[in-house]
Amino acid sequence: MLPAELVSALNNLLPSDRLYTDPVECYTYAYDNSRKIFPPHAVAFPLTTDEVQAIVMLCNQHKMPLVPRGRGTGTSGGSLPEQGGIALSLERMLNILSVDAANRVIVAEPGVLNQTVQDAVRLHGFFWPPDPSSATYSSIGGNIATGAGGPHAVKYGTTRDHVLGLKAVTGAGEIIKTGCYTTKGVVGYDLTRLLIGSEGTLAVITEATLKLTALPTMIAGITAYFSNSASCAVAIKQIMALPQLPSALEFLDAGSLNLIRNHHPRMLPNDASAMLMIEADGTENEISTTVSSILNACKTDGLIAANQAENIAALWKARKALSPLLREIAPKKINEDVVVPVSSLPDFLNSLEQLSRQYQLANVNFGHAGNGNIHVNLLIDPDNTEEAARAEACLDRIFDLVIRLNGTLSGEHGIGSEKRAFIHKEIDQPTLSLMKNIKLLFDPNNILNPGKLFP
Amino acid sequence: MLPAELVSALNNLLPSDRLYTDPVECYTYAYDNSRKIFPPHAVAFPLTTDEVQAIVMLCNQHKMPLVPRGRGTGTSGGSLPEQGGIALSLERMLNILSVDAANRVIVAEPGVLNQTVQDAVRLHGFFWPPDPSSATYSSIGGNIATGAGGPHAVKYGTTRDHVLGLKAVTGAGEIIKTGCYTTKGVVGYDLTRLLIGSEGTLAVITEATLKLTALPTMIAGITAYFSNSASCAVAIKQIMALPQLPSALEFLDAGSLNLIRNHHPRMLPNDASAMLMIEADGTENEISTTVSSILNACKTDGLIAANQAENIAALWKARKALSPLLREIAPKKINEDVVVPVSSLPDFLNSLEQLSRQYQLANVNFGHAGNGNIHVNLLIDPDNTEEAARAEACLDRIFDLVIRLNGTLSGEHGIGSEKRAFIHKEIDQPTLSLMKNIKLLFDPNNILNPGKLFP
Ligand SMILES: Cc1cc2nc3c(=O)[nH]c(=O)nc-3n(C[C@H](O)[C@H](O)[C@H](O)COP(=O)(O)OP(=O)(O)OC[C@H]3O[C@@H](n4cnc5c(N)ncnc54)[C@H](O)[C@@H]3O)c2cc1C
Ligand SMILES: Cc1cc2nc3c(=O)[nH]c(=O)nc-3n(C[C@H](O)[C@H](O)[C@H](O)COP(=O)(O)OP(=O)(O)OC[C@H]3O[C@@H](n4cnc5c(N)ncnc54)[C@H](O)[C@@H]3O)c2cc1C
Repeated sequence: MLPAELVSALNNLLPSDRLYTDPVECYTYAYDNSRKIFPPHAVAFPLTTDEVQAIVMLCNQHKMPLVPRGRGTGTSGGSLPEQGGIALSLERMLNILSVDAANRVIVAEPGVLNQTVQDAVRLHGFFWPPDPSSATYSSIGGNIATGAGGPHAVKYGTTRDHVLGLKAVTGAGEIIKTGCYTTKGVVGYDLTRLLIGSEGTLAVITEATLKLTALPTMIAGITAYFSNSASCAVAIKQIMALPQLPSALEFLDAGSLNLIRNHHPRMLPNDASAMLMIEADGTENEISTTVSSILNACKTDGLIAANQAENIAALWKARKALSPLLREIAPKKINEDVVVPVSSLPDFLNSLEQLSRQYQLANVNFGHAGNGNIHVNLLIDPDNTEEAARAEACLDRIFDLVIRLNGTLSGEHGIGSEKRAFIHKEIDQPTLSLMKNIKLLFDPNNILNPGKLFP
Repeated sequence: MLPAELVSALNNLLPSDRLYTDPVECYTYAYDNSRKIFPPHAVAFPLTTDEVQAIVMLCNQHKMPLVPRGRGTGTSGGSLPEQGGIALSLERMLNILSVDAANRVIVAEPGVLNQTVQDAVRLHGFFWPPDPSSATYSSIGGNIATGAGGPHAVKYGTTRDHVLGLKAVTGAGEIIKTGCYTTKGVVGYDLTRLLIGSEGTLAVITEATLKLTALPTMIAGITAYFSNSASCAVAIKQIMALPQLPSALEFLDAGSLNLIRNHHPRMLPNDASAMLMIEADGTENEISTTVSSILNACKTDGLIAANQAENIAALWKARKALSPLLREIAPKKINEDVVVPVSSLPDFLNSLEQLSRQYQLANVNFGHAGNGNIHVNLLIDPDNTEEAARAEACLDRIFDLVIRLNGTLSGEHGIGSEKRAFIHKEIDQPTLSLMKNIKLLFDPNNILNPGKLFP
């Protein structure tokens, strides 16, 4: 329950259509893609930085949790009000403030969808490289707060590499301006990147200055099928050893292919147990060279066939369908997004196979192989407590393996609530406590997304 | 004077050849490229992270300033012990710990020179994109601490974009490990980029994991001469509007050209008052297209001639000679490196001309035009107090102009001591005090490079 005084202050601040307190309305803001449910006690919809500041101030006064929320597509529980309090939905801060083609910059409010940014700049020959599969329904505020990335990260990097500056309201209620408008700038500490990936725990992002990249002249697609994961992993290494980086390099294992087969029976060769979906971009001439060297790099013992794809859109459609297909067969699957160095992928995939056999778990793996970023899915029924316990034990082993291979626990999804119990496996005590102190500096009353990130 | 207790503790820690206390020896660590002189009371040369930690601990005990130093090539006074104390020279931490070509990574200690990194990875077909003109004599620790960039930043970005992780010792004496070994990773706050550009005020960098990039297959150079700066600025805008970014786009104004003429009388057309040195890289086919579109984009009213250069090395030699030539004629010149949005360059250069006329100052401008990063040189004799006062007033106006044009006060050199009086022009009070608090969090006793960055 919210204190009456806080509710009336919020009512003074926001018109009734921008403040939900009815539990039914609030319930629609209770979940994200982690499939956990934590209803907020109220949902506030600010339109301006000043309104965000006023709400933050009120929450400080009442020591009330305030949980920033973009479009709730996060997979780590980041936007869920676990401790109750107010959901701060940025989804109505929808203005594109400027498209400055001459300087390759767009300035936009946090609620603008990733796809809307792409559409606004495509006319000018640009794109914004961060490309989560959720681009059509996730917000740039959410993309920035999670440090989102997607298939094209192998060539273009992630959100971190494509933001010039931010406006934000700290947990203490201060309006800050980070970074600059130009592509170079070294004045003061890099608070921009400190906020990128901070999962709504330090400040509410209210405006973003994004750096644009020219659209490639041409794109080519390649599909390659392998009789086993091991030879596919070798091909990945060979492709990543080429000087020209592919613009995407997606891996699908046997389990993934079987899922697709169930829905599209004639799409894939019967004997394929692993697949690569590869994209190369550039000018026409460049591409023909790159494609032939990639086709060459695919040659391993287990290669069944590697061919240039005629229809790239169709290629990506199959890849994007995979995540929902997994949900169908295991609605509460455990979905990790670990990263290992590319050269360790053969070792990693092999060890994964052994672990899932040892723990008798159905396991489906796919992902952004060019970055070594693999989505590891344990397809369990969490109502089967015995199976869930096995999965937990297996997960622990997987994380240890990742760390041993010099990898990281999350390439895209972040820690949120889902992975906070494991963060100490990767980050040592002194570094973690420094992070906690940074959190307190930005948010002394611990009102901003409390409990997230840290164990 | 250092307390005897501290000196004896340092003597216990380090052999005598790794601790200077003789004022004559210390004097060689008293200056950097800012040409100010502040001798340290001692110079310590650690070889390991643990030794760095031990020294930091001792300095905390004695509240003794400790100033990290790479190779002292910084131009903003960053490595100078303004308040006395100990210079911490990292120049002997020289190990390259691994070159991992399969994962495009090199791990090195902070004292390794930028050029040494380039040489170590070139064999494998890679380079490390940060390319300050000081590459042959600046350290990667210094490059990271300043967020260095160079001519190729227009295409490849700066240091910030090419570091995966760091090991460092905070001002409090904690050893931290930031970032990760892979190209993707979103676990915890981005402390890596918080340290990049922090100018030795937060932590001592003792190990760096650097991300490598494939060497381009081919490089082409173009020179273009203009009868006036205005038409050259228009050409810059036109070049930057092309989809393919040049790999370098360097601008030289009339003053710069005259300096070169004094030393190389026949090198430049007589009627040229502005020049662009342009580089394009890529595959052979790509380059021929890019070169012809760049030559086309050079076409403005004032274009005298634009031609592909036969000898790229010679081209860069002329550009690199410029800085020392300026020193010759004005050893204590004021050397700024402001940045404005590329589209504002015509306005900026025009206003600069007016300002230098108004304040009767000799003014030479050149720089990384593709990033809008212009080195503004006021050629004064600082012993002429009247002229120095005029220069100060003019500088103030230049900085205001830069901020009005949505630019930044420094693209490469950082704040150090040279620009700290101006930082408030760019960074507002709440953001600045947040930065100061971050400083205190990392370095509660304010021993690490005290007084730098903040006014
Ligand atoms: C089908 C599907 C595919 C996906 N594919 C990818 C993928 O390829 N790559 C990838 O990286 N992710 C992917 N995701 C995860 C998710 O889409 C991203 O994390 C996305 O960036 C979240 O954006 P959002 O607007 O939904 O944010 P939310 O889920 O609402 O919030 C995410 C986090 O950001 C914080 N936050 C949101 N807005 C702000 C703000 N303005 N200020 C401060 N904090 C804020 C929240 O508190 C929370 O911690 C996928 C999700 C789905 C459902
Ligand atoms: C001729 C010339 C050309 C130049 N051209 C460029 C250019 O094109 N681009 C550019 O960006 N700069 C340029 N510079 C400036 C300078 O070379 C860079 O700033 C360089 O990165 C400094 O490296 P350094 O090793 O000399 O560091 P130093 O000058 O010794 O130190 C610079 C700063 O970094 C800190 N520091 C150094 N090492 C560490 C460490 N291990 N841990 C923590 N803090 C540390 C110091 O405290 C100081 O604040 C040029 C300088 C000269 C003299």
